[in-house]
Amino acid sequence: MRLSLGLVLPIGACIRATVLQQHHCQRAAATTHWLWRLSSTHAAASVGPRVDGKNKPVWGSTKKHRNVKLNIFLDMTDPDIEKELAPLRASVKQQGDLVRQLKANGAPELDIKKAVAELKLRKKLLEDKELSLTPDSANFDRAKMEDLLKRRFFYDQSFAIYGGITGQYDFGPMGCAFKANLLSTWRKFFVLEEQMLEVDCSVLTPEPVLKASGHVERFADLMVKDVKNGECFRLDHLIKAHLEKLCFDKKTTEDIKKECEDIMIKLDGMNKEEMGHVIKKYNMKSPITGNDLTEPIEFNLMFGTQIGPTGLVKGFLRPETAQGIFVNFKRLLEFNQERLPFAAAQIGNSFRNEISPRSGLIRVREFTMAEIEHFCDPSDKSHSKFESVADTTLLLYSACNQMDGKSAERKTIGEAVKSGLVANETLGYFMARIQIFLVTVGIDPQRLRFRQHMGNEMAHYACDCWDAECLTSYGWVECVGCADRSAYDLTQHAKATGVKLVAEKKLVQPKTIDVVEVVPNRGLIGKAFRKDAKRVLDAMAAVPENKLNEFEKIISENGEYNIEEQDFTAKVTKDMVTVKRYQKTLHVEEFVPSVIEPSFGIGRIMYAAFEHNFKGREGDEQRKYFSLPPVVAPLKCSVLPLSSNAEFAPFVKKLSQELTKVDVSHKVDDSSGSIGRRYARTDEIAIPFGITIDFDSLKEPHSATLRERDNMSQVRIKLDELPAIVRDLSLGKMQWSEVEAKYPKFEQQESTENQ
Amino acid sequence: MRLSLGLVLPIGACIRATVLQQHHCQRAAATTHWLWRLSSTHAAASVGPRVDGKNKPVWGSTKKHRNVKLNIFLDMTDPDIEKELAPLRASVKQQGDLVRQLKANGAPELDIKKAVAELKLRKKLLEDKELSLTPDSANFDRAKMEDLLKRRFFYDQSFAIYGGITGQYDFGPMGCAFKANLLSTWRKFFVLEEQMLEVDCSVLTPEPVLKASGHVERFADLMVKDVKNGECFRLDHLIKAHLEKLCFDKKTTEDIKKECEDIMIKLDGMNKEEMGHVIKKYNMKSPITGNDLTEPIEFNLMFGTQIGPTGLVKGFLRPETAQGIFVNFKRLLEFNQERLPFAAAQIGNSFRNEISPRSGLIRVREFTMAEIEHFCDPSDKSHSKFESVADTTLLLYSACNQMDGKSAERKTIGEAVKSGLVANETLGYFMARIQIFLVTVGIDPQRLRFRQHMGNEMAHYACDCWDAECLTSYGWVECVGCADRSAYDLTQHAKATGVKLVAEKKLVQPKTIDVVEVVPNRGLIGKAFRKDAKRVLDAMAAVPENKLNEFEKIISENGEYNIEEQDFTAKVTKDMVTVKRYQKTLHVEEFVPSVIEPSFGIGRIMYAAFEHNFKGREGDEQRKYFSLPPVVAPLKCSVLPLSSNAEFAPFVKKLSQELTKVDVSHKVDDSSGSIGRRYARTDEIAIPFGITIDFDSLKEPHSATLRERDNMSQVRIKLDELPAIVRDLSLGKMQWSEVEAKYPKFEQQESTENQ
Repeated sequence: MRLSLGLVLPIGACIRATVLQQHHCQRAAATTHWLWRLSSTHAAASVGPRVDGKNKPVWGSTKKHRNVKLNIFLDMTDPDIEKELAPLRASVKQQGDLVRQLKANGAPELDIKKAVAELKLRKKLLEDKELSLTPDSANFDRAKMEDLLKRRFFYDQSFAIYGGITGQYDFGPMGCAFKANLLSTWRKFFVLEEQMLEVDCSVLTPEPVLKASGHVERFADLMVKDVKNGECFRLDHLIKAHLEKLCFDKKTTEDIKKECEDIMIKLDGMNKEEMGHVIKKYNMKSPITGNDLTEPIEFNLMFGTQIGPTGLVKGFLRPETAQGIFVNFKRLLEFNQERLPFAAAQIGNSFRNEISPRSGLIRVREFTMAEIEHFCDPSDKSHSKFESVADTTLLLYSACNQMDGKSAERKTIGEAVKSGLVANETLGYFMARIQIFLVTVGIDPQRLRFRQHMGNEMAHYACDCWDAECLTSYGWVECVGCADRSAYDLTQHAKATGVKLVAEKKLVQPKTIDVVEVVPNRGLIGKAFRKDAKRVLDAMAAVPENKLNEFEKIISENGEYNIEEQDFTAKVTKDMVTVKRYQKTLHVEEFVPSVIEPSFGIGRIMYAAFEHNFKGREGDEQRKYFSLPPVVAPLKCSVLPLSSNAEFAPFVKKLSQELTKVDVSHKVDDSSGSIGRRYARTDEIAIPFGITIDFDSLKEPHSATLRERDNMSQVRIKLDELPAIVRDLSLGKMQWSEVEAKYPKFEQQESTENQ
Repeated sequence: MRLSLGLVLPIGACIRATVLQQHHCQRAAATTHWLWRLSSTHAAASVGPRVDGKNKPVWGSTKKHRNVKLNIFLDMTDPDIEKELAPLRASVKQQGDLVRQLKANGAPELDIKKAVAELKLRKKLLEDKELSLTPDSANFDRAKMEDLLKRRFFYDQSFAIYGGITGQYDFGPMGCAFKANLLSTWRKFFVLEEQMLEVDCSVLTPEPVLKASGHVERFADLMVKDVKNGECFRLDHLIKAHLEKLCFDKKTTEDIKKECEDIMIKLDGMNKEEMGHVIKKYNMKSPITGNDLTEPIEFNLMFGTQIGPTGLVKGFLRPETAQGIFVNFKRLLEFNQERLPFAAAQIGNSFRNEISPRSGLIRVREFTMAEIEHFCDPSDKSHSKFESVADTTLLLYSACNQMDGKSAERKTIGEAVKSGLVANETLGYFMARIQIFLVTVGIDPQRLRFRQHMGNEMAHYACDCWDAECLTSYGWVECVGCADRSAYDLTQHAKATGVKLVAEKKLVQPKTIDVVEVVPNRGLIGKAFRKDAKRVLDAMAAVPENKLNEFEKIISENGEYNIEEQDFTAKVTKDMVTVKRYQKTLHVEEFVPSVIEPSFGIGRIMYAAFEHNFKGREGDEQRKYFSLPPVVAPLKCSVLPLSSNAEFAPFVKKLSQELTKVDVSHKVDDSSGSIGRRYARTDEIAIPFGITIDFDSLKEPHSATLRERDNMSQVRIKLDELPAIVRDLSLGKMQWSEVEAKYPKFEQQESTENQ
């Protein structure tokens, strides 16, 4: 079951409330990126001291603990399950076929939109059923995880002592280290491995750039405001919540219920006016105060500001990092010695002024992205390293399967590209690499799928688009988008600036073309016009090719030609110019490169990794820990003296210094408390390896125990060998099994009781 | 000679034009950070297509090449030099003594300010003289360096195809990699080494936070606007430029000249009204258009925006990262198990809306900072690791020496702390560590000094403050600030929120105190007031301790007490409360920690490192390269096939893969061009090591040449040993001299001619 994000709605209604949100990605023409609309209709950002009666800040969560069944992937081989799903599958397929037919017949756009909305609804019902039939493999307690994340300061709301701001989070030491390790892994995995050109561009972006990209016009959500207190509500969420409440009301007639359901189905395809009409018809008020609401307002999601002191240069905080790469295309191509293909990459913060952000790290106003723009020849999207990933198996949820009511299917990326399901090798290569990366940083491969955008979701210029989605307690969440954006972005910026954003390629066969051009007699023109000579020359050079015949005719018939510009006129005589005609052989041609764009939402990946690695100990489910892979774990190692015995101190100090020398981040915990209790504490912050200095450490040869977090097994190793071993384990250059095979096992019951 | 940053002023006037800018750091009470005011009076940010006649963007610099004498440190042992400097030193000392005397006598603030301004002027004259007497050790050509940085896309103006925005830069692949390596080194050097708590906080900051910190009120510059076109000018720069022009004019009488000079000296201490008066008196107009100017306007340097859709929550882009740490103090202290001292760190972007940014990377609107906040007991600022740095020698320019006209002096930090020159061990420890870090990342130790803030520069709450300054062609530039900020920040946020931001410490001797408190009879109050009982209890708990005697008197004499709040009254009777008096023994006491803050301007450090590492080859001064240390060099290694011979390709490919495996960033350059020419190209982008695959590589045992950038020597090494060696060289774990000692030298003339 999915969680309700809406207002205090009856549980039964919740399923419908979120139906249309999950897969819908209506995009501005220029924004095929992840992170798009999933907020509730609740109040917006607010600041103000939030303290209790005793002037203590309110730190803890006030939410009730909720158990969320986290269903992992369905066993499709079970015939009973298939039997239950069959009617739902048929219902999706029927509607999918209708959509196809409408499109084939060129039906009106609105009809198609409505049919698609109904299709999505049916898909959602099918998916919910699938999830509900999965064996209840894990009882995931989100509130418990969030409390741990807050208590050990992985992250928490920003400016909490000032009352906090919704949609903004500060990463504490553990979250920050996890993030830094994740980004460093990303950099090695993509930038270093593929020799990408990494850039670091400005956040403040002048308006013309975002006009060209389409964000100024189209990067907006519809909202209404409470006329009295100004509180804002996302329009679609408000309508849904209202109609669902109505449907659930026993007093509502069947006719009205049917009408409401009909509207909810069509809501997704409605425009501003239609939604405004619904608001009026049902006399909707603010669900908080009961006050009247304004007409629908388009609210642009970018944060605006002024650059410079004049107040005249309007700017925005970038809503994505991609545009910084596009406007630098020429420099990057030059840096790459004019060769294609090449990829540029950027890690940085972007900002979106969500109307009412919720869902923790999943929907925030300020977030870190890592984006890649791979530029290539539109006629050749092969990839030189494709073979190296061709056998990688991905769980693919194709647009076709979505329309036919079928499940996602496991396929190798080699097959998928060969069959044409994935548009080209480059897109396929990145999809495989994205999966390998996500699994490396802790995403559970069983809860990872690639969902293809359906035709109507995709921006009109995109060729193909697949989202890497992770299954979390919020449902399937888009964490990485991977789109073939064709030549859209470069074309838009070229149009806006008049700067050619193209690459050249050698023609297989040289091409011969006819050239007509004006050749001026510079000497005569110089003499005749003196200081104005340059303007005359420029004016003649500016005569467009298709006007040259006319120009030639005038000057040869009249013996002269009048240049007439706004503030300048001149008379050019026949002797001053010749029109030359000749043939020219071209060896290269210019083209606007295509762009394949993998775009990573770092906060979302972190959140999914937290959920996928939140574990309880067998037999002691309450003893929680995070099983994050060593390569991204915030700290690599703990150093624990068995007790406060002073003899341990020099060993702890020396070991800490040696670990620092080999760049192993670690934490010394010499506080009191049993060793088991201290292990439990380091488990909570995902520290994968623990070194304990005990009484045997004092004897020669000095040694200590090394413990692995996930299976809690321990070995005994000499102190001088330890730092290098922990370093290799942390970098993934050595596996725990190798250590276990090589060093003597150390047996001891772990207990969190004080000893 | 310093460069003029002003308008087109006669050279002679320039020296005065910049006199007052260099050392002056008038700060808002809350902003003792580096990066503060040094912009010129010229036009503000502008956006618009900037293309030439043929629709090509204007890429190149249009500035004239300028040779800037870069003088490095003076030989103070030369008696002739001392003779020339003596009168200037005396003049500074005389004025320094005057300032001291004025302060001692409690002279009016304005008089002191004027005397200090004159002192600064004299200091500047002395410093200019010192620099001019230094042997002309290097002819630094800034334009040439900037052209190289632009051409190889280290960085360049943002949004150039849209005409660009002043004060904003995009880092290209080489700049971005240098920056990433610099930050990663910083993280290892400070966060890992000192086990600091790194955080990553929000950029968007709600207004109340920045009101408490003092930024909303005081983080401002004065400007005037052209009344017709709205162009903005920094007020102090405009006045200076105008008066200097006047002084230079032969028609100006001696009296007027004297008056102008007098104003320039006093300008620094003038307020808004006084400067407005000068503008009127001299009838100053816009230096660009000659139009009238507005009255002086205070312009806050923060970028404002609205958070959320209501338009009611005002926010700013943070002007420094420090506040994010302060508002998280409680969480961090808790994370550190309530122990002090500890340090928190943050790397992130900050934003300042400069009126007219100039000076390249030195003064920008968007910049990366790395800040450390070390929290400690105000009564104990010793540092456990101070001994490890005590012998480090720093070049210290004390406030005292500045006032006495003396030079900076080399001292060990141990001596400096012992003598009280540097306020405490923690401050001293960080200063030493800052120096070691800066030298590690490429700052020339000969062009690095620590300048102490003079009393009037320092924020009123700060105890001591030293800036690490690097000598560049812009003069001495503050790159890292290191301040003891006492308890100011935590106190301000505690005041604003009512949240206690304190730590506890054990008392050496337990302390006994008298306690008076109101003990309510909850049962009676509950019965009497029912739903209002809580308000009554809260009201009684809120009676301040010093009013309790009065309260007791009233209630015992009258038998009752009236609670009177704005919207609530209640009558409490004698039986409902008791006033209790007793003694309590305290074992801990609370205190507000002091903060020592090292604050790094990453862009400035990068810029200074570029200048300090911009070199020409002996005998071929035009062949420029950057000698950045391997640990921060953008790429570590190049792989060059000697020619396009197809037999080299598999070796190049294999080697590239092996280098990737050991995380060595590298560049394959298989383009045509002689090997020497390709080396020169890799030298330009600071690649420290170059591997060439030649015909000997084809023979077994396969080997290649390895070349070092700075001395251009080469050795021959087996291919399978190379990756590990280059990795160790890049990490600084092996020195080139060790490689040279171990492997056979490879001799070949390097030439950039095509072979």
